[in-house]
Amino acid sequence: MATPGDPTTGQGPDDATLVLVPDDEAARSLAGVPGLRTAIYDPASGDVPEDGRAAEAILLSNDPGHADAVFALLGRLSRLRLAQTLSAGYESWDGRLPDGVLLSNNRGAHGGSTGEWVVAALLAVVRDLPAFVRKQDAREWDQRGSGTLLETRVLVLGAGDIGLNVRDRLVPFGVEVLLGASRARDGVLGPDDVPGVLGDVDAVVLVLPLTDATEHLVDAAFLGRMRDGAILVNAGRGALVDTDALVAELSAGRLRAALDVTDPEPLPDDHPLWSAPGLLLTPHVGGVVDGWRRRALAVAGEQLRIFAAGGRPENVVGD
Amino acid sequence: MATPGDPTTGQGPDDATLVLVPDDEAARSLAGVPGLRTAIYDPASGDVPEDGRAAEAILLSNDPGHADAVFALLGRLSRLRLAQTLSAGYESWDGRLPDGVLLSNNRGAHGGSTGEWVVAALLAVVRDLPAFVRKQDAREWDQRGSGTLLETRVLVLGAGDIGLNVRDRLVPFGVEVLLGASRARDGVLGPDDVPGVLGDVDAVVLVLPLTDATEHLVDAAFLGRMRDGAILVNAGRGALVDTDALVAELSAGRLRAALDVTDPEPLPDDHPLWSAPGLLLTPHVGGVVDGWRRRALAVAGEQLRIFAAGGRPENVVGD
Repeated sequence: MATPGDPTTGQGPDDATLVLVPDDEAARSLAGVPGLRTAIYDPASGDVPEDGRAAEAILLSNDPGHADAVFALLGRLSRLRLAQTLSAGYESWDGRLPDGVLLSNNRGAHGGSTGEWVVAALLAVVRDLPAFVRKQDAREWDQRGSGTLLETRVLVLGAGDIGLNVRDRLVPFGVEVLLGASRARDGVLGPDDVPGVLGDVDAVVLVLPLTDATEHLVDAAFLGRMRDGAILVNAGRGALVDTDALVAELSAGRLRAALDVTDPEPLPDDHPLWSAPGLLLTPHVGGVVDGWRRRALAVAGEQLRIFAAGGRPENVVGD
Repeated sequence: MATPGDPTTGQGPDDATLVLVPDDEAARSLAGVPGLRTAIYDPASGDVPEDGRAAEAILLSNDPGHADAVFALLGRLSRLRLAQTLSAGYESWDGRLPDGVLLSNNRGAHGGSTGEWVVAALLAVVRDLPAFVRKQDAREWDQRGSGTLLETRVLVLGAGDIGLNVRDRLVPFGVEVLLGASRARDGVLGPDDVPGVLGDVDAVVLVLPLTDATEHLVDAAFLGRMRDGAILVNAGRGALVDTDALVAELSAGRLRAALDVTDPEPLPDDHPLWSAPGLLLTPHVGGVVDGWRRRALAVAGEQLRIFAAGGRPENVVGD
């Protein structure tokens, strides 16, 4: 077994697996992982120090503004065999890595925070909290009731880490949770089952990855099958939903929604979603909570540990 | 065993226990309860039909505007032995009923809805949803992170139906829940234990009844022991809290709060709470959700069934 890296510098012994990391914090976090040594690259420019060019693994920057520079860097790393994300979503990297490079995502770090956002946002819509915020600003005491999650049924599309975190939080509210995923399995509906249940649920939660198969999964026909007054919650990716079709349903007052992701994103100033009735909109903050990077670095460290020990990381995704 | 009442009129057989009810809906709900017959009184005037004056029980109106007329009515019902509420709170009736009249509250009907409001409001504050609502109205995409309930500790004061509903909903969010009540018991802190833990929790939830012992329980000293940035959630009664002391802490930006109840209530237009920073305010709607009256009438019916069968209702409260 390799010895742990030096906890001060993040550098490890020379026989350890070399991992490029985007900053000091990541280097410090990985310093305790057996079998690794680290070098720091500049994710803004793609520059890498001389002693980092033999890296076998890279921890990808989570900043979309760094994507072009990091792609260029990947092509220059001849010994690279693993790219590890800090995010659960991986659609910007999937299928675009050099041949022979595995992609591993950050499943496990974000399920709690994103699952929490889903339930917070769904509860806010159900209990009319956005309307009460606006009435508070208007100093208006208007004691009117609201809906409740009690005795409702919610379909969660995405039965991975985030979906299971959503389910576990919803059940104690008296919610019957149905799970759906890209393949049917025991206790999980498949794509062919979903249209048949859309009319029987009070809310649909999207926590799916964005793929060719899921892009615009929620189109006018999908929305049209949902009950009057039902709620669409999207914490996956904006392009899972046909935005124009959703705007039409919201504008008609037939459906409600909570969106943490939009298409396009960020949302332009003049986009009709901003003022659509019955919508709670947050700016892609589902996973952005205190401690997120610490949790993400811990999950990444475990994947890199497995890789350094000669194994296949549990979170390998894509092709 | 007595026969069930006539489901059409709500009247039961003459040997059944006579219950005064405030409206047709209540009469219909109680029509299926064995051993009861009902007569309808007018809660606005206190008027009661000739055949209702021998009532042994009354279902109290839930409207505070009816209180004076209903108090006057109670004094005229010489055979009255039980007054049953539709609410969990009972401070407006406690100790003010004619001698020999038991008071029974509606514990069991509102725990789910009020517990839901507590978690919805706490999550909204933790995840900054009121700020995001205001930014949505300003068409501003501002991707900043927030706190989370993950790895936090919450003190729930009130370990009855509502408190347990709060606990059961919070635990799956990764929250360590401490319970407190008016008497210490296994797993529940007593009043003497509470000051010592206030500095160790991220939020304090109030779901206590208002009594002489709990009025202004949350005063300047209590608030002063809470951590910087901690959140006070009140779903009990407004007078549990010294409002001036809370306004001072909110105005200083040291604490945050979510209040469904205030003192005074309704809150006057010019009250400083309306614009206190870090506050989410709703107008006493914690239990006011779709189906609340159906659930409350079911609980009341069970208490009245026990009474009619010669027993002591489970929900008897007060002296």
